[in-house]
Amino acid sequence: MKSWIYRLAFASASALGLVACSTPSALMVKEVGSYHVGGRSVTLSGLPPKELTPTPGSPPIKVDPNGEFEVEALYARYTRLANPKAKYPLLMWHGGGLAGVTFETKPDGAPGWESFFLNAGHDVYISDAVERGRASWARYPEIFQSEPFFRTKKEAWELFRIGETGSYSADASQRKALPGTMFPTQAFDQFAKQSIPRWATNDAATQAAYDAYVDKACPCVILVHSQGGNFAFQSALNRPGKIKAIIAVETSGSPDPDRTDFRRLKDIPMLWVWGDNLYKYPFWEAIVARQEKFRQNLATAGGVGDKLALRELGYFGNSHMVMMDRNSDAVAALIQKWMTERGLMK
Amino acid sequence: MKSWIYRLAFASASALGLVACSTPSALMVKEVGSYHVGGRSVTLSGLPPKELTPTPGSPPIKVDPNGEFEVEALYARYTRLANPKAKYPLLMWHGGGLAGVTFETKPDGAPGWESFFLNAGHDVYISDAVERGRASWARYPEIFQSEPFFRTKKEAWELFRIGETGSYSADASQRKALPGTMFPTQAFDQFAKQSIPRWATNDAATQAAYDAYVDKACPCVILVHSQGGNFAFQSALNRPGKIKAIIAVETSGSPDPDRTDFRRLKDIPMLWVWGDNLYKYPFWEAIVARQEKFRQNLATAGGVGDKLALRELGYFGNSHMVMMDRNSDAVAALIQKWMTERGLMK
Repeated sequence: MKSWIYRLAFASASALGLVACSTPSALMVKEVGSYHVGGRSVTLSGLPPKELTPTPGSPPIKVDPNGEFEVEALYARYTRLANPKAKYPLLMWHGGGLAGVTFETKPDGAPGWESFFLNAGHDVYISDAVERGRASWARYPEIFQSEPFFRTKKEAWELFRIGETGSYSADASQRKALPGTMFPTQAFDQFAKQSIPRWATNDAATQAAYDAYVDKACPCVILVHSQGGNFAFQSALNRPGKIKAIIAVETSGSPDPDRTDFRRLKDIPMLWVWGDNLYKYPFWEAIVARQEKFRQNLATAGGVGDKLALRELGYFGNSHMVMMDRNSDAVAALIQKWMTERGLMK
Repeated sequence: MKSWIYRLAFASASALGLVACSTPSALMVKEVGSYHVGGRSVTLSGLPPKELTPTPGSPPIKVDPNGEFEVEALYARYTRLANPKAKYPLLMWHGGGLAGVTFETKPDGAPGWESFFLNAGHDVYISDAVERGRASWARYPEIFQSEPFFRTKKEAWELFRIGETGSYSADASQRKALPGTMFPTQAFDQFAKQSIPRWATNDAATQAAYDAYVDKACPCVILVHSQGGNFAFQSALNRPGKIKAIIAVETSGSPDPDRTDFRRLKDIPMLWVWGDNLYKYPFWEAIVARQEKFRQNLATAGGVGDKLALRELGYFGNSHMVMMDRNSDAVAALIQKWMTERGLMK
């Protein structure tokens, strides 16, 4: 009888056009899409004209570099589920010298945090901040005030705690990784392809675009990495009520902990996530100290400042790029557990 | 009895965890992801050092601009369906001064061609070419050989056949659109936020990255816009057997029609799609003439060179950005019909 009912159920489901739904592990997606948000129009004048052949074989065109441009917007792409289990969309904000690709497929080809959190039932939004990726960049020094920085592979190798300072080699086989690193070192050059130039003079424009993004996409939960942390905390101050939680992954900055009005943040549960080997780098020790002060001041003000110090929890070898490490799913599961415990799921 | 079976079917489907599948119009997605492909490692030396404060409040770091960089890769993002109806993935290649965003949500907020073709049963891949968007760009003149061009809003307004030459105004309310244009002119400034700087000296690197992409993602069908056309035709020549069809939307260039070995292309069905008002612009008339020669030489060699001249089919007012026009779904349906007729669906 049971098997008969099963067969009937499938046959009827098929008749109803539901047969595709028997595919295991497929995501039910309501909508994919993207938008640019924020930014402004600027006018350039007085620059000399240039000639451009836009495509080989097409007629050359005279280009007047003067005129109007849209600049300093932010780009966001979203995947909205048919039946999300999370109360709010999850916005993922990348760190410095990188773009939203951070959260997509990992450099070693395995699924990244975007896939993890979609499968966990979140609508996921991934953005490129002002100056990065699909948000694009603007002419300098006329619009952006300085020239950009390009991160070397050596800097990424050492700053991101994949190898110790001085351990980088141009020859991949000679690079000395940190003992027990969870970063997939064979995919390091692939990771380096994600690098995107950055400016040191665009923070105000970037913050304005993030605030406009929060206006458009929130209420939401923000999962933020590295340089993005400062923008997320500041948006929480600038846009009260909009941000329902912040997951601060290896965040490198924040507003001054001694000058922040934590009464404005105390209703936003926050979780700090830290990888391993921080103590080996004075640069990272200074960053952690400041973030810990921020976290403790939040707690003192009556807020929720939780912490996942992965090393203390028995997870060893995590780099700055936790979401690309070989145990990224295990770390994501800890974050998901926290979100459930903090009441962020339906 | 019938209603009882229906109820049983639903109840059983629910017990089997299939209830979410009753959501109408949801996409069954097997996988989302992305990768960088192609590119090379370069080394810079002899440049002076600089100081950078990566995040407000974080310690300043000394940046040595010399070292190794990964450059000239291409970025692709894919959405793979659980049950695709198309035989091959559909790769969408953007035009000049733009990135893959071209095919995502339209500037007026309506769903774009990515959504249309996902819903029609295609696995969809959307890329950013070398120098654009998430593919990133490299330092010039040390790596890229020249400086980039930034497209003004005036140029986009006029070159893309939204308004006639000389009809652009800084004041949006004063801009004179072409009579009956299908471009959503109220969203023109939003469209301009998608602009991305371009170089005139990167074609060889871009072609190499597209060829590497074809190696990785194909067999496939390519839908290509504007400047991308030249790269798609060339990849078809460079990678025999990999590209199963090309849909050339307002393509602005191609290899020389008088020097192309069309025997290498004759097994690849091709469709050219043209918007309206081309005859008003000598620039576009020259482009169409060259493309028509390419198409006719393909046909003469025994290939399939079809054409959708939208104006001749009674679709008026389409701009260069057909996929953003108000009737973009109607045009996409014509393309989809062609793919079905050409045997590209299962």
